[in-house]
Amino acid sequence: MAQGALPGFRDFYPTEFAQRAYIARIWRDVARRYAFVEYDGPPLEPLELYTRKSGDEIVAQLYNFTDKGGREVALRPEMTPTLARMVAARANALRKPVRWFSLPQLFRYERQQKGRLREHFQLNVDIIGESGVTADAELLAVAIDIMREFGLSPDDVRARVSDRRLLRALLERLGVGDEQLPAVFGIIDKIERQPREVSVEKLSALGVSSESADSLFSLMDGLTLDALRARFGDTPAIAERIADLERYYTYLADLGVAEWVQLDLSIVRGLAYYTGIVFELFDARGEFRAICGGGRYDNLLKSLGGVDLPALGFGMGDVVLGELLRARGLSDVPIGEPDFWVAAAEDGDLRDVMLAATQLRRAGASVEYALRPQTLSKQRKAAFSAGATYFITVGADFAERGSVQVDEVQHVEGAGASLVDRLEEMPKTLASIIALVRDV
Amino acid sequence: MAQGALPGFRDFYPTEFAQRAYIARIWRDVARRYAFVEYDGPPLEPLELYTRKSGDEIVAQLYNFTDKGGREVALRPEMTPTLARMVAARANALRKPVRWFSLPQLFRYERQQKGRLREHFQLNVDIIGESGVTADAELLAVAIDIMREFGLSPDDVRARVSDRRLLRALLERLGVGDEQLPAVFGIIDKIERQPREVSVEKLSALGVSSESADSLFSLMDGLTLDALRARFGDTPAIAERIADLERYYTYLADLGVAEWVQLDLSIVRGLAYYTGIVFELFDARGEFRAICGGGRYDNLLKSLGGVDLPALGFGMGDVVLGELLRARGLSDVPIGEPDFWVAAAEDGDLRDVMLAATQLRRAGASVEYALRPQTLSKQRKAAFSAGATYFITVGADFAERGSVQVDEVQHVEGAGASLVDRLEEMPKTLASIIALVRDV
Repeated sequence: MAQGALPGFRDFYPTEFAQRAYIARIWRDVARRYAFVEYDGPPLEPLELYTRKSGDEIVAQLYNFTDKGGREVALRPEMTPTLARMVAARANALRKPVRWFSLPQLFRYERQQKGRLREHFQLNVDIIGESGVTADAELLAVAIDIMREFGLSPDDVRARVSDRRLLRALLERLGVGDEQLPAVFGIIDKIERQPREVSVEKLSALGVSSESADSLFSLMDGLTLDALRARFGDTPAIAERIADLERYYTYLADLGVAEWVQLDLSIVRGLAYYTGIVFELFDARGEFRAICGGGRYDNLLKSLGGVDLPALGFGMGDVVLGELLRARGLSDVPIGEPDFWVAAAEDGDLRDVMLAATQLRRAGASVEYALRPQTLSKQRKAAFSAGATYFITVGADFAERGSVQVDEVQHVEGAGASLVDRLEEMPKTLASIIALVRDV
Repeated sequence: MAQGALPGFRDFYPTEFAQRAYIARIWRDVARRYAFVEYDGPPLEPLELYTRKSGDEIVAQLYNFTDKGGREVALRPEMTPTLARMVAARANALRKPVRWFSLPQLFRYERQQKGRLREHFQLNVDIIGESGVTADAELLAVAIDIMREFGLSPDDVRARVSDRRLLRALLERLGVGDEQLPAVFGIIDKIERQPREVSVEKLSALGVSSESADSLFSLMDGLTLDALRARFGDTPAIAERIADLERYYTYLADLGVAEWVQLDLSIVRGLAYYTGIVFELFDARGEFRAICGGGRYDNLLKSLGGVDLPALGFGMGDVVLGELLRARGLSDVPIGEPDFWVAAAEDGDLRDVMLAATQLRRAGASVEYALRPQTLSKQRKAAFSAGATYFITVGADFAERGSVQVDEVQHVEGAGASLVDRLEEMPKTLASIIALVRDV
């Protein structure tokens, strides 16, 4: 029993669980506000669901095994293949655009990196069946509104946005050929994390001229759409993408999230399958890894053998987000402390305590009491240590007149306080307390 | 992509997810009312955590495998070993009694039985650190109050209760020896499901006399505690257990659940580790398997190599419960239909729609709109098919005076109706609608 959880797996004691549940609640609240509906799939899927897709970086990290029936299976490393499978199975029956979200626990197996987690929870939000940039704006607004709901501001979190079609058009204009594009995307993806010389060398090895490389670097230096248009607007393919992005920004403004967003052409997203606008959310101080990443993947569903529908989505994990919230002091949440502790007066017995507790519970309150007879002072200590808000003493008066004594265990801010105020004005019968509980 | 989920695993489309989420919500609401706090562990655990425990029926059904690092692991088949591990790791720091609950997804691998599920969700509620029957009563009250919260009554569900110590004392009185007890418990466990002759034969093979076997059968025929006392009350060990059970019943009455409960000595629970009061919840018509089972397992934590604390708990799965709720017409739940559908008037554009939608979402409402320009009649159809409650038309008056037109999409009962009534009295500006949303 000395043994703990497997390496890379978390135990969620009530305090940690409360933080996980808080994150899940905000995720759900905001997703529902945007009229997304929740779905889920199995945590275990056929291995084939993942190997079929390109993107070897994921396959190498799979938590896969052969089951007792000889089937090759994997603990799900991401949700999109499951989503593609489920949508394909009911493609005709589903209302379009599909607006779905899910909160799967995802798994990966990496041999080398000790200390890294092998599981996390990830919000997945996807829109399937809409090719216009309204959908791109709606999707990013969900991700940003979640940040806002956690109490974060544009000073804490930045959304960095790019468009792979724009980047491709710009690179073509700079003379990068089609066959060089995937490798150049890979270099751009790492451009912030490695010394410029390394990127230059890699570009040169690909046959990209040093002049083109310089131009490429200048694209990554926080250019505005206006500056891009001034330099490259005479190329129709580029002008078209710029116009698209401008509409996208307009919609982001209408959706109230524009101030969080900045153009950043170095955002290409590691995965091979994105086709259009892509984005990542980062903490503004650059202390953490990306909080969220997503974008448009119009060809993916079809390439997975599913339906041919345009699609876009993002994933947001609980780990980096949790670290950021803790760092900003935004993750203190109650673990479910009882509203009431019901105590027996020195001469009282447990039966009256149980009767009173039952009435309060029926009214919807959370109630605890000592499961064996104890002195009043021991019961007070227990109530304090449980974090209960109110302490109700049940004595002889309870059976006769329904009277109890109510004390505040400790100061509670917010909603609780109004109940205290009102309790002071009211007669102290259990019935009057119950009426207040139902009312609050 | 023709391929679906693995055999025995469920896809949760929004409708099915809503039912799963409804069950989870009631589980959480009631557990919290009883001041239990939620925890969770990893879905994957070291195999050893399960093989260490007796009870071969579980080990044979494990979903176990060797991971890429050569570790023997298993998808968790039950929560108790994880609970024992987590409590043992922080035994001194935890407030006693520990009142914890969890909603794990559990897994099993059975080769033969095709069509049976290999995963389910199971509410686990446990009290650790209290040996008195108050805790037994509190635990059963949680399980029964969950039934009540789902809209079920004592006519729908019965709690069948036994006490393994009482049964042991009675069997001893009937001449069953210590070494025969485990096998006799096993026969009693199956007594309802097999012909009497088979049970008699098995008892006889164990060396139990036919007279003792007859007495044993009479114990299973719905005896009351009073009848038991009249027949066996002169044996102190039996009288003591009867007195304990009477106190248990008194507490169940105080907790408001006595009318759901009946004594049934044939309930022994399949698992070897129960030590005291045990119970199962069944649908009253006998159509389904057990809804819930649990009891006291005072020696288990210690035998798992953990702490020596008395403990009790129950598990309630989502599958049988879901079948019962569907059969009783109690599982129709909304999937998250939007409160408002915001539409552009024929001459309106999406920008005003987005502005209006954003304001409503900020107020907490769930809002959808067509992501591309459509005729008003197409938007109406989309709102209907989305199940939206209200249809808001945004036209030229919106930009000028904030005025919109509000229509009810379809009749909604309950909370929605009061909003309709109030909307009819109010000026139709977005601001007034938002004020109402914040208020409701």
